[in-house]
Amino acid sequence: MSLTVVGTMAFDEIETPFGKSGKIIGGSATFIAWAASNFVSPINQVSVIGGDFPQSEIDALKAKGVAMDGVQVKKDEKTFYWSGKYHMDMNTRDSLVTDLNVLADFQPVIPENYQGSEFLILGNLTPQVQMSVLDQMKERPKLIVMDTMNFWMEVAMDDLLKVLKKVDVLMVNDGEARQLSGEYSLVKAARKILTMGPRFLIIKKGEHGALLFHENHVFFAPAMPLDDVYDPTGAGDTFAGGFIGYLAKTKDISFENMKTAIIVGSAMASFCVEKFGTERIRAVSKDEIHARINQFVQLVNFDIDLV
Amino acid sequence: MSLTVVGTMAFDEIETPFGKSGKIIGGSATFIAWAASNFVSPINQVSVIGGDFPQSEIDALKAKGVAMDGVQVKKDEKTFYWSGKYHMDMNTRDSLVTDLNVLADFQPVIPENYQGSEFLILGNLTPQVQMSVLDQMKERPKLIVMDTMNFWMEVAMDDLLKVLKKVDVLMVNDGEARQLSGEYSLVKAARKILTMGPRFLIIKKGEHGALLFHENHVFFAPAMPLDDVYDPTGAGDTFAGGFIGYLAKTKDISFENMKTAIIVGSAMASFCVEKFGTERIRAVSKDEIHARINQFVQLVNFDIDLV
Repeated sequence: MSLTVVGTMAFDEIETPFGKSGKIIGGSATFIAWAASNFVSPINQVSVIGGDFPQSEIDALKAKGVAMDGVQVKKDEKTFYWSGKYHMDMNTRDSLVTDLNVLADFQPVIPENYQGSEFLILGNLTPQVQMSVLDQMKERPKLIVMDTMNFWMEVAMDDLLKVLKKVDVLMVNDGEARQLSGEYSLVKAARKILTMGPRFLIIKKGEHGALLFHENHVFFAPAMPLDDVYDPTGAGDTFAGGFIGYLAKTKDISFENMKTAIIVGSAMASFCVEKFGTERIRAVSKDEIHARINQFVQLVNFDIDLV
Repeated sequence: MSLTVVGTMAFDEIETPFGKSGKIIGGSATFIAWAASNFVSPINQVSVIGGDFPQSEIDALKAKGVAMDGVQVKKDEKTFYWSGKYHMDMNTRDSLVTDLNVLADFQPVIPENYQGSEFLILGNLTPQVQMSVLDQMKERPKLIVMDTMNFWMEVAMDDLLKVLKKVDVLMVNDGEARQLSGEYSLVKAARKILTMGPRFLIIKKGEHGALLFHENHVFFAPAMPLDDVYDPTGAGDTFAGGFIGYLAKTKDISFENMKTAIIVGSAMASFCVEKFGTERIRAVSKDEIHARINQFVQLVNFDIDLV
């Protein structure tokens, strides 16, 4: 069972009401891989980095079973860099600097030894890059999960709609679901998006949890109430990594199993926000993950015995 | 088993993106009584109305087992009137007119036949009025639930803190929990509020569900995802009515049973928002309530079988 992860590997520099991170490792594919590596191996990473990306970070991911054959290293260029500042509510942020660097002309190449991967997750990237990956897969993966963002809806909607037709699960946040569908009600938005290609839709609502829609079914998973959200960066990608990692581990892509996968993703995301960047999720143990998932069971479990 | 409900009975006039209500019946005690009457009887209503309040509304509540002995009728005065306008997100609203009328000098009187009531809910009113009710109860009810709002934190915090010391369950929204505690994190806010008197705290988050805190335990109930929220007015009071109605019916005030009561409250609130005012909850059937509660089970239920 293998999982292919496509996305960014980056430098982040983050300011929150709690402090400043300095220049740390980030990127969608980084968070996805760290989260998923707790459940599945090998992970086939597809990304691009510059000569300034630390070898120690690559070694650390390799040690967790993440293959780097599909990660292009452009020795003389710089890694994608993003810096941002969060407001007090931790749900809104300003981007301060976005230097695409190596990402500007990223042409992903799927190595031969990645072919036959049964699970594929397309992290947030241009729809053209996402489509290029799909075109290179000789055999359609059993499950294709896609993330995207409002920016691509504004500048590349036609391409985005083409990719949408080819994926099984779309993950967006509530604002993006509204923008993509033109519907304010998330239920109506979901109904419309489920006609655009994906059979499953996950709407992420940050601290307000996540919704999974499929046919006429809906499932809701809360976010774990925490003393403090220290840094939300990467929480959505960590959620995605836990979600697809659990599916790849259990090899069951039914709606029922996706519910559990969403709880697993929520548990992983709840670790991510406890520290800056990948600090917490790279150190989390299996016991901690199980304990956190049990907390989710306690959080939502109730007995019903109506007379 | 009887339940005493203290709160307003009012005229509301509401504008939402979906339409205008005209002058309709509202008020916290009205919504609480309609919701709770599906579970418990008698309900001992304590409120004040003017001569302009329709007899048909009083008769309708009486027919549902709501006693009116504690509702003062001031023939020559006008009923409390509120009008407001909701924004597109349905979570924010502007008050257009607030005419206190009979509410301005409301002195609640608990009739002798209300004494011995085992459940008491203090709807949102001045802390002085809430305290006056508590002072009149010859025997402390088994469970006292209290609602309040940010306005009383601003103008009557000392009185509010005194009432808080005497109640078992406090219900507030997320902004009010933050204001009352001075903590941004809802987990920290809850910890602090649970030292102020109440043993249980419910934080209502509107379309984002509700949290129940008790000692070191936390429970989360989502709001039902709906095609449209037509009118949120009274949803919090309807939630409260379903909550305390279910507790009064089952006579079980354990944390475990409160979880179920919160689901029942959420189900009742999900009906409330489907139409203007009390239109939907006064017509809801037991079968519809059961079906909606089952939808909540489906919404949050998942299997966990971690290897």
